[in-house]
Amino acid sequence: MELTYTKQYKKLDDKDIKFLKDLLGEDRVFTGKDINDDFSHDELGGVSKYPDAVVNVLTTEEVSKIMAYAYENTIPVVGRGSGTGLVGSSVPVEGGIMINLTQMNKIVELDEENLTLTVEPGVLLMEIAKFVEDHDLFYPPDPGEKSATIGGNISTNAGGMRAVKYGVTRDYVRGLEVVLPNGKVIEAGGKVVKNSSGYSIKDIICGSEGTLGIITKAILKLLPLPKKAISLLVPFPNLEKAINTVPKIIKSKSIPTAIEFMQREVILAAEEFLGKKFPDNSSDAYLLLTFDGNSKEQIESDYEKVADICLEEGALDVYISDTDERKEAVWSARGAFLEAVKATTTEMDECDVVVPRNKVAEFVKFTNDAQKQFNIRIRSFGHAGDGNLHVYILRDDLSKAEWDKKLSDVFDAMYKKSQELDGLVSGEHGIGYAKRKYLFRQYGNDYMQLMKNIKLAFDPKNILNPGKVCE
Amino acid sequence: MELTYTKQYKKLDDKDIKFLKDLLGEDRVFTGKDINDDFSHDELGGVSKYPDAVVNVLTTEEVSKIMAYAYENTIPVVGRGSGTGLVGSSVPVEGGIMINLTQMNKIVELDEENLTLTVEPGVLLMEIAKFVEDHDLFYPPDPGEKSATIGGNISTNAGGMRAVKYGVTRDYVRGLEVVLPNGKVIEAGGKVVKNSSGYSIKDIICGSEGTLGIITKAILKLLPLPKKAISLLVPFPNLEKAINTVPKIIKSKSIPTAIEFMQREVILAAEEFLGKKFPDNSSDAYLLLTFDGNSKEQIESDYEKVADICLEEGALDVYISDTDERKEAVWSARGAFLEAVKATTTEMDECDVVVPRNKVAEFVKFTNDAQKQFNIRIRSFGHAGDGNLHVYILRDDLSKAEWDKKLSDVFDAMYKKSQELDGLVSGEHGIGYAKRKYLFRQYGNDYMQLMKNIKLAFDPKNILNPGKVCE
Repeated sequence: MELTYTKQYKKLDDKDIKFLKDLLGEDRVFTGKDINDDFSHDELGGVSKYPDAVVNVLTTEEVSKIMAYAYENTIPVVGRGSGTGLVGSSVPVEGGIMINLTQMNKIVELDEENLTLTVEPGVLLMEIAKFVEDHDLFYPPDPGEKSATIGGNISTNAGGMRAVKYGVTRDYVRGLEVVLPNGKVIEAGGKVVKNSSGYSIKDIICGSEGTLGIITKAILKLLPLPKKAISLLVPFPNLEKAINTVPKIIKSKSIPTAIEFMQREVILAAEEFLGKKFPDNSSDAYLLLTFDGNSKEQIESDYEKVADICLEEGALDVYISDTDERKEAVWSARGAFLEAVKATTTEMDECDVVVPRNKVAEFVKFTNDAQKQFNIRIRSFGHAGDGNLHVYILRDDLSKAEWDKKLSDVFDAMYKKSQELDGLVSGEHGIGYAKRKYLFRQYGNDYMQLMKNIKLAFDPKNILNPGKVCE
Repeated sequence: MELTYTKQYKKLDDKDIKFLKDLLGEDRVFTGKDINDDFSHDELGGVSKYPDAVVNVLTTEEVSKIMAYAYENTIPVVGRGSGTGLVGSSVPVEGGIMINLTQMNKIVELDEENLTLTVEPGVLLMEIAKFVEDHDLFYPPDPGEKSATIGGNISTNAGGMRAVKYGVTRDYVRGLEVVLPNGKVIEAGGKVVKNSSGYSIKDIICGSEGTLGIITKAILKLLPLPKKAISLLVPFPNLEKAINTVPKIIKSKSIPTAIEFMQREVILAAEEFLGKKFPDNSSDAYLLLTFDGNSKEQIESDYEKVADICLEEGALDVYISDTDERKEAVWSARGAFLEAVKATTTEMDECDVVVPRNKVAEFVKFTNDAQKQFNIRIRSFGHAGDGNLHVYILRDDLSKAEWDKKLSDVFDAMYKKSQELDGLVSGEHGIGYAKRKYLFRQYGNDYMQLMKNIKLAFDPKNILNPGKVCE
């Protein structure tokens, strides 16, 4: 059985707009010039296109009715959160209806006995963090972009910094309410801790970038809030020494919550961007580590052991940040890296590969060498502890044609290198529109055909976020 | 697009047998009376059927060639590990070829820098535990049946006892090599810690009970071995008090590794079965807890807090097992519960529901009351800490007709109750052949149609383990 994609979509007409306005009211349906420019692009995907209509939804039932109508009429639909993606996942490349989920932003229930939080998709990551901490609880996934919605975050399975110790977003999603492309509503998973009840629809929806269904509710797993956390900032004479220390830390029994690496250029950019000094900028390379736990003694014994490992491996010093103020100085800089690097150039694009943890050093060296080879500025930072790198290629004053050519050459080289090192195309930003070519190259035809079959199992008319991931 | 299942399979003939013997040699292909009775059933599924041929495979390439041949000729195929399943997942209800994977049992690679273990599917859980512990490492998933193969374990996503603290099997599978129904081989995931590179095929294969592909290699995530572990055996005057204590423990910041519950009848059965005394059998109900960590002080502070919670909630005492010998006495009994209960009756079947953790007490009370209501013996034990219950219904001296009727009535009542409590059909044993009816009842048509579509996305000819899960 050969399955093929529909590409013959119905163009939105007055009748369709009337359907939407009858359902939602005039003030929640936007068309033509009333559509805000923001809805035509994401943060970095290098692709833009306006939807034919943007609708603000408030309930699962509204989403269901819109999908059923779109399915019947073969109209493309894209769901959208804060639009903070980096690979064009939420850009409506085929036009059609954009369902804006940011107003479905209620925290529905905190269940302290089962340690779960039920939320609508439009709740922001920063709101979740604050809410649960106020209740002495902890939601570990911690992507850098705190203004992302939880719906968008689950859709990319972005894991963030604490994956070293706590795992990624998927590990904290216990249940999902999902509107399928045909408008039917299903609940996958629930408050339960274990589940072997049929295929794990919940897990395949996580990370599917809005192509298989629209998440309208999520049940998240919480943990008790660790009582204490400290950060270590560890300067090294060079990046290689810094990164080569990481597998040794992983092997010790003192697992940090996060292990980030950074180089001086990026720190200087962040200082400039924030107008604030970083605690130290005299060294070439740094590891930034955090430890959390429930007693001072336990954390101390953990970080002392890791500090010793760092010093044995050539660290120049170990700065301990154990007050909120000092932690803030370090982590606010780390949180601003993307924006800070962006501010130093005219345009940039990124590569979000993930490699086995013992290959990080080799990959970062490769990107550093690529600067000379391709004569282009490249900045990188990221999650040394989980092998997920964020590498930014900067346009600076290149002409459009030069930039396109060079970016393509650099990407080709990097994804090829990542594959050589048994890495994968994306650690947490997803494939979306921008990285499809590299996913095809990595996986080959058999694997991609399977993904296409899965897409069509959910969406036989290919109306939900078409043109993404495996298409 | 309406997809339908093939049910017109080719019957194995001499030509097919010749293909298998040419590929594998005479001594690895069994037919007719040479097929061992074990291959016609699993541990408890209540269904039996002989395959037309059993083949012992040694390599991925062999599996791939057999699948490609079976696909071309529309011959049903079932993969099989140790056959320790409880719901008939590995029973070849349509006959055809059974691929016995137990001889693909090599530990391929221990990667201490990335903390991964690469294994073939036939390696047993007890072999993995021993191997990694000898290297001072830890593979947390711990299902009761240690002679299960890792391939079978991943296929049911059985989580075991340590899910409270460490999560389930899926959380420890980083990568899979899978032979698809058409014979193509794919690698999903890898040694990487994070992955947002397309739909998570790895996660949907986990728990798919051998219906979507045959696992031929797995990359498992390891942790450093905790240095110390202790167990607490806590007697309570009744089961309700015992189980109602659990949500309070979960809310404390001292998360145990495991929280099991057990009742006196089951302990007495285990004593009889093993011919060994349990440390205490004078109380009606017990919680059995373990704690692990890297320092005596940390574990002590954790278990002391939990012991206090138990005593406040009405525990009669708290027995601490901190020597290997004393832990062995308790856990060997726990490990023998299933066999011990089985030995007290003529036949039994089981219900493996999972409910939210704060509903465990209500569900167990319901099963106890059901003994009177249906006039039948019921024994239960299980994972109070993760809400996954193992409830055994015993036939004793009922006639076949009475047993069939009563079992069906009891199951109907239990799954209905579980659904009322927001539970699901299976926490870790799967759906297989035996529990399909209850899965259909729980999920309804839309959800089941989606699962069927996913099955056909992987297996358009429906030749791999047909008749299971969603069919």
